[in-house]
Amino acid sequence: MDALVAPKPRPRGSVDALIALAEADMAQVDVVVRARMQSPVALIPELAEHLIAAGGKRLRPLLTVAAARLAGDRSEHCIRLAAAVEFIHTATLLHDDVVDGSQLRRGKVAAHLIWGGASSVLVGDFLFARAFELMVETNSLRALEILARASRVIAEGEVLQLTRAHDLRLTQDIYLEIIKAKTAELFAAAAHGGAVVSGAPEPDIAALRTYGEKLGFAFQLADDALDYGGASEVLGKNAGDDFREGKATLPLILAIQRTGAKERAFWERTIARVEQKEGDFRRARELIVGTGALAATLTLAQTYAEEAKGALARFAPGPWRAALEDLADFAVSRAA
Amino acid sequence: MDALVAPKPRPRGSVDALIALAEADMAQVDVVVRARMQSPVALIPELAEHLIAAGGKRLRPLLTVAAARLAGDRSEHCIRLAAAVEFIHTATLLHDDVVDGSQLRRGKVAAHLIWGGASSVLVGDFLFARAFELMVETNSLRALEILARASRVIAEGEVLQLTRAHDLRLTQDIYLEIIKAKTAELFAAAAHGGAVVSGAPEPDIAALRTYGEKLGFAFQLADDALDYGGASEVLGKNAGDDFREGKATLPLILAIQRTGAKERAFWERTIARVEQKEGDFRRARELIVGTGALAATLTLAQTYAEEAKGALARFAPGPWRAALEDLADFAVSRAA
Repeated sequence: MDALVAPKPRPRGSVDALIALAEADMAQVDVVVRARMQSPVALIPELAEHLIAAGGKRLRPLLTVAAARLAGDRSEHCIRLAAAVEFIHTATLLHDDVVDGSQLRRGKVAAHLIWGGASSVLVGDFLFARAFELMVETNSLRALEILARASRVIAEGEVLQLTRAHDLRLTQDIYLEIIKAKTAELFAAAAHGGAVVSGAPEPDIAALRTYGEKLGFAFQLADDALDYGGASEVLGKNAGDDFREGKATLPLILAIQRTGAKERAFWERTIARVEQKEGDFRRARELIVGTGALAATLTLAQTYAEEAKGALARFAPGPWRAALEDLADFAVSRAA
Repeated sequence: MDALVAPKPRPRGSVDALIALAEADMAQVDVVVRARMQSPVALIPELAEHLIAAGGKRLRPLLTVAAARLAGDRSEHCIRLAAAVEFIHTATLLHDDVVDGSQLRRGKVAAHLIWGGASSVLVGDFLFARAFELMVETNSLRALEILARASRVIAEGEVLQLTRAHDLRLTQDIYLEIIKAKTAELFAAAAHGGAVVSGAPEPDIAALRTYGEKLGFAFQLADDALDYGGASEVLGKNAGDDFREGKATLPLILAIQRTGAKERAFWERTIARVEQKEGDFRRARELIVGTGALAATLTLAQTYAEEAKGALARFAPGPWRAALEDLADFAVSRAA
């Protein structure tokens, strides 16, 4: 591992403890998800199943459940809300893939390439509406407000990113504003909503929201680093997607700033005009690693992970708190 | 006017009385709509303004206001809900135009042709989420449930229509199921929600929902007839859109059934394969008028209009009831 990339060892986190603790709850969430993605219109469950069966770690509903459990709630109030969170997330993935023209999602061919963009848009709308139906059943107007706001903020973040795509002058501040809206807001709302339906005291609710938000930043920044191979430069299945789409993320933004006039023509061609050829991604990766842009991105991600863990300090030590601390470290260590 | 088309005179309705009665309320709705379509992301109000400024009659929020007023409510509870209804409707228009590839909307170039499909999808998502934020502010979980359900049913109807587009075997029953979901449901929910926030007695609430639903059927069927020039065969700005998209609506479904094997090749080419040439629309219109398919569509629309008016019989006579009766007749007479 390059010294520029890893100036000091980072804690190795894991999501395993959380998955084990939440296993029974998440099985219930799964039952609700599968029951409520049904429709007499056959294409809807067929398309939804494609995405939902592909799985992923279901981090956002996990957060809802974990926040409620850490707040001491033993009831089932959080289950429907967690399923609603998963539906909102799935709806945004369907719409994002249409918007970005993405080829792959969760390692499978993106739904819009199989069923067409129109179906992805409309099934996204279905899942989004279904999420609100589920939330009505939680009887918590406050949880509904949190998730309605999050859904609106996500859309604002997506539009902001769309209008700034291919923009070489994008700054770190604006980029953080974009990912606050398009990623951190739903992580925050997932934990916030879980805390609210648990009936936790206000300071606990606020702390859990902060945990979710900081965790969201950490995950997104680590994802951005992973798209360039992460610190270990092992390229995952979807590595290079951001670059190929000419999408400016933090590693790229920092590399553009740090290479200055010298590489201006390269970035103009590959990112602003998205005219790419063989070897461009490798060169971009070398510049991103060589300028320390990748390391800086991961350092910032780790800062957010530490802030996330810090927000949990007010809770008594125990398995849920430890599992959420591990999750915060995992957000970054999977890219290190 | 052709005898086949207009077997008996229909009542001439008008929307003018309702617009006059609701003027002050709708001015308040407009203030909320304009305030809540704002966003720090400039593209969002810009795109939303394009559609919202184009206006239209704002029938759905009008229904919400009128239902509350007819139910005797003098408060402002219905205003935010009416604005939410308008946002949901605008969101579905934005997504529909992307899905259908429509060229025009409310007489203006469709938003996706100006700002791109991605922006239309995301601004639709913004407006949809904003609608739920507004509904939270009404403090009525029941109204929220009605509109969340309607949003989900609309998406189901759109997907159903998408999977049955270009299908020459589409029956009247399935077509009515489609428009029940994609049009009548939101008319029903708009009136239903208005009645619910007014705190009306349950039988009044049920009657107002029925009024909205039947009115929705009447409007959609008359729109379908208008797309072929209506009974007077005066072609409006967007006439022929359904035909050009190969979209089977009731006038077409009935004409296909009534012309049988004789015109099979014509429908196969123009609707199933959407291979159209000069003069095809005129010929389709002649078949639709000549077989009485247009007249049958308008007769069915009038039946729904009568049922809508019938649902109002339980309310004491007065200006709001009379205006809603006029609206039901107007739904059909504008196509006659």
